[in-house]
Parts: sequence; C-alpha cells; structure tokens
Amino acid sequence: MNVTTGPAQFTDPDAYPTRLPDAERMTARRDPVLWSDWTDKAPVSREEAEFYAEKGYLVRRDLFTPEEVRLLIDTSAKLRANGQQIRSEDLVTEPGSDAVRTVFRLDEHDALFARLAADSRVADVARFLLGDEVYLHQSRLNYKPGFTGKEFYWHSDFETWHAEDGMPRMRAVSASVLLTDNSALNGPLMLIPGSHGRFIACQGETPEANHESSLKKQEVGVPSQAVLEQLAAEAGIDAATGPAGTVIFFECNTLHASNGNVTPFPRSNAFFVYNAVSNQPKAPFAASAPRPAFLAHRGEASPLRVVSGDLCRG
Amino acid sequence: MNVTTGPAQFTDPDAYPTRLPDAERMTARRDPVLWSDWTDKAPVSREEAEFYAEKGYLVRRDLFTPEEVRLLIDTSAKLRANGQQIRSEDLVTEPGSDAVRTVFRLDEHDALFARLAADSRVADVARFLLGDEVYLHQSRLNYKPGFTGKEFYWHSDFETWHAEDGMPRMRAVSASVLLTDNSALNGPLMLIPGSHGRFIACQGETPEANHESSLKKQEVGVPSQAVLEQLAAEAGIDAATGPAGTVIFFECNTLHASNGNVTPFPRSNAFFVYNAVSNQPKAPFAASAPRPAFLAHRGEASPLRVVSGDLCRG
Repeated sequence: MNVTTGPAQFTDPDAYPTRLPDAERMTARRDPVLWSDWTDKAPVSREEAEFYAEKGYLVRRDLFTPEEVRLLIDTSAKLRANGQQIRSEDLVTEPGSDAVRTVFRLDEHDALFARLAADSRVADVARFLLGDEVYLHQSRLNYKPGFTGKEFYWHSDFETWHAEDGMPRMRAVSASVLLTDNSALNGPLMLIPGSHGRFIACQGETPEANHESSLKKQEVGVPSQAVLEQLAAEAGIDAATGPAGTVIFFECNTLHASNGNVTPFPRSNAFFVYNAVSNQPKAPFAASAPRPAFLAHRGEASPLRVVSGDLCRG
Repeated sequence: MNVTTGPAQFTDPDAYPTRLPDAERMTARRDPVLWSDWTDKAPVSREEAEFYAEKGYLVRRDLFTPEEVRLLIDTSAKLRANGQQIRSEDLVTEPGSDAVRTVFRLDEHDALFARLAADSRVADVARFLLGDEVYLHQSRLNYKPGFTGKEFYWHSDFETWHAEDGMPRMRAVSASVLLTDNSALNGPLMLIPGSHGRFIACQGETPEANHESSLKKQEVGVPSQAVLEQLAAEAGIDAATGPAGTVIFFECNTLHASNGNVTPFPRSNAFFVYNAVSNQPKAPFAASAPRPAFLAHRGEASPLRVVSGDLCRG
C-alpha cells in the first residue's frame, strides 16, 4: 500500500511520493545537493565540491597510509573469519556455507571500523556535503569473492530509504571505503552521473517485508529500462574505481549498479551511510512497516563525534 | 570417456591430452603462436605481430569506414528481425520469446557477412597469423541485450575444439568484429595475456552431448580457480574494447571470459573462427562424438578466397 496518512505525513508532507500504483514518474529534485557553501576551510577542494554537486559522487584516493589500509584489510579478514561471534541478524553468509558476505551494523561489531566511520577524512566530508551534524543510518562490511560475484541492479538508495525507512529528504550520503583494489573489470560501483538531480518515483506498491527479497534482487523501487536508457544515453555511465583505501562518496539519490564479477579478484568494502541529524526517519512513506534496525537506524540519533589522527594509533 | 584409441589417434598422437579423470595438468604449448615470419608485406605491423605473439590477442581499430560499419549493423538488425527465416538448428533465441540471440553459420545466412569473413582486412590477418590458407571452423552473430546480459566463464576455445571437435593443434584464431561499442563496463571480452603459452589439461570426462549445456554454462573443460588465480596474479587481466567496427583477434588457446552486463548498452558482434587448412579436425580427442556442424565445420574445407575492397560495393 502507498501510505499517505501516517502520523509523520500530517506534519511533514511527502516531498517524494513513490511506489505509485499507476505509473513511474520523473520529477525534479526538491533539495540541494551540496548543503554547505564551499570555503577554503572545507575538507574537499572547490573542484571536488563542484564535481560532487554536478555528478552526484566523488572518488577520493590516498586518504589513508598504507599501514592504515593494511590494518583495515586485516581487521576485516578477522571479522569475516569469526562470523559465528556476530549475532545472526547482522550476518549474511554464502548460501550453503558459513563464509561471511556481509556484516551489518559494522560500527557496533568492531572498534576500528567504528573509528573509521568517525574519522575526519570520511565523516567531516559527509558533514560538509550535508551541511549538518551526521549519524550512521546504516553501516556494513561487504565481501564478494572472485569468480562468482553477483550483479546488483540500478536503483536510488534514497527511493528505498524514503519509501521503506521514512527518510524525509535527500540529505544523506554513502561512503564506500575500498578494502580491495577495484578496477572497471571486477564489478565496480557504476553510477549515472547527474541522475541525483531527478527523482524517479517508481511504479508498484511495496510488498510486506520487501527487504527480505530486495537485498538479494530488488524488484520494487527500481526505474524502468526506458528511463535508465534515457539517462544513460544523456550522461553515460561512470565507474568508481581505485586501489584499496580509496573512498567513494555518493549522493543518496544517485542511480547506481554493479556488474557481476567472474575475475579471480574479490571485492570488499566498508560501507557507511551518513544521514543529517535533521533528516531522521519518520514513518515509512510507502510501506506498511519500517525496515529492521540493522538496515536503517531508528530512534535516537546523536551526532557522530568526529575523530582525527592515525587509525593505527587507535 | 577419454578417447585415446580413435582412428585419428593411431596416425596422429594426441599432442594435448585433456578431460583427464585424475587431475588438472598445466603443460607447455607445443605449437608456434605466430606461424609466419614478419616481413614488411605482412598485413599487420611488426609491433602488432609481436604483441599478438606475446599476449595472445590483438585489437585493431579503424579498419572499416563508418559506412561499412553502419551497413554491418543494419544488416545484423535485419537478420535478427527475420529469425523465423533461419533454420532452427542455427538459431538461439531468448528464453520465452523469439528475440534472436545467436545466428550460427552466419556466413551461410547472409552474403554481406560471408563477404566480411573473406575480407582481406580480417582473413589476410588470419592467414598471416596461422601461416596457412584458412577456412571457417565456426561463424556466428551474437547479440546480448543490455540490462540482462549474462556472463561467460573462463575457458580456452582450443581445449574444447581439441577435446570435442578433434582439432589437432593450436593453429586457429578467432576474429570478433564489434557491432556495438564495447567498453570495460558492458561485458567486454576479457583475456589473460600470455595464457596461450600453456595448455591447461582439464579434469573431468566429457559428458554425452556436452555442447547442449556447455553453450549456456560450461562445466567441463574449464580451468580450476587455483590456476586462474595464479595466471591472473602473474599477468593480470586485459579487456578488449573499442567502438563498433573494432576487430579483436585472439589465439585459440588464450583464456578468456566475459562479465554480465547490467548497463543499458547491448553488445553485438560477428564472430569468425579461422582454422589452418592443414589443421582440420579428426575424431574428437576426448568425446564420444563430434559436435554438430553448426558449431564446428567438418568435411571438406576449401581455402577461403580472400576479397579486397569496400564492403558497401558488394
């Protein structure tokens, strides 16, 4: 059903109606992309801020020392090796084995990754882009082995977070910290540059407990092939690539996808979704119940305390 | 079963035993790669010949005029639109529809593509690389739509052609003429450079009518993940990309694969396998019966008569 009478909506009308029963609809974005004015105190260059505003993503390399990157990689390997110590709700394992694919609420399971999420080189960029204090809407560790890595299809994260989590406005940004080298050939994050400038209200009402299947294959809340063809014909497709340690920031409404990966080279990243504290979820805008907390933080959201310094020194 | 007593093998011992019951085995290549000495009369530059000898493939761009490329694309679209006129044995359609994915024996179904197969810009290169007159072992038109293009896994063509078609030696080369732009992101041909220098005898005996399933997903006749990891760690992985009209030559034993493609951009190519006339198939080396003729030409193989000139002039 397309909830339009939930309590949140009485005081805060739905800026982005979606999961429409009749037809897909493309409308203009109603929020800024860059929520701060750039000054020479900003944690990114003017060119980077302009790139992000125009393209909807930003790739930053060489933020971490080789020792920091090595520590992150080693720590992620230990986490995956000790999956049995992680509560099952937060764990996705390989079908038919206990090999760990995803650890949700990563910041709660490991002190180093909590420290990474709060690191100024990542979190201060999020604070600048969103023009507000930030907190983690979602965090996770992803690991996709080589040879069998599966694709994921085009979508806007905001469309799901708005419909199913109740996130009111486009004031969130994801940061993917690469823990493996990622080239154009091993299933990198692909983005349609500029696609964050329009909201694609999707056709199709949200099934009950949609996240149980949509994490594997998203069927509802994806744009039509016709719209994707149009946007890709206009703007092309970019791949966000780089060596381990690269950080990819992408705006919550930028359309993105990933091809499968038959190369021997695995892919892994630590993934943090920063939301503005002023943009905390209400009742879902187009689902009967909110998604569980491991996918979308609910309740109190205190501003993240940003920390500077070498990750290797704790 | 691993045929070792077929009539062909009495006079022509098996240079590359494969489909072994016990274990995979990596051995040295026993044939030249470049079967001609380069001279300034060669149809490729000295650098190109050396690149092919070392890497096992060669990408050549700008061989055809824009008008020729347009004619090839339009002709392929007409062929696919008239799939019902093509004998079903030579046709692969989309599951659940009559959308044409593959047309085998392409040179028999269309005069322009027969002309392309014989064109000096393609066939003379094959003759030079193989140091012999050539004929078509296989030809086909491939079309993979955007959004849903499936991957194919790492393999050496020669391994299959030797085991299942009875091709004696490594003296064949494939030419893929791109009919769409192919970037690193829409499932390009990926190759392990230099992998043609070793023969990977695969473990596992050949099932009956293996081609019926192996065309969809190859299970027998593929290297182990350990070997692929080793070769890719040594040499990396190259992608053969280029605009429509690009021709990719690759040696029959070069390991190759392709990722799936969720981009809106389809992939299409005309694919010709040139074999040396001195290298015609005998009885299969490791299968109970040869594959059908649409996959592997058998019987008389007269040297291809090479033609020069503009494809648009017939």
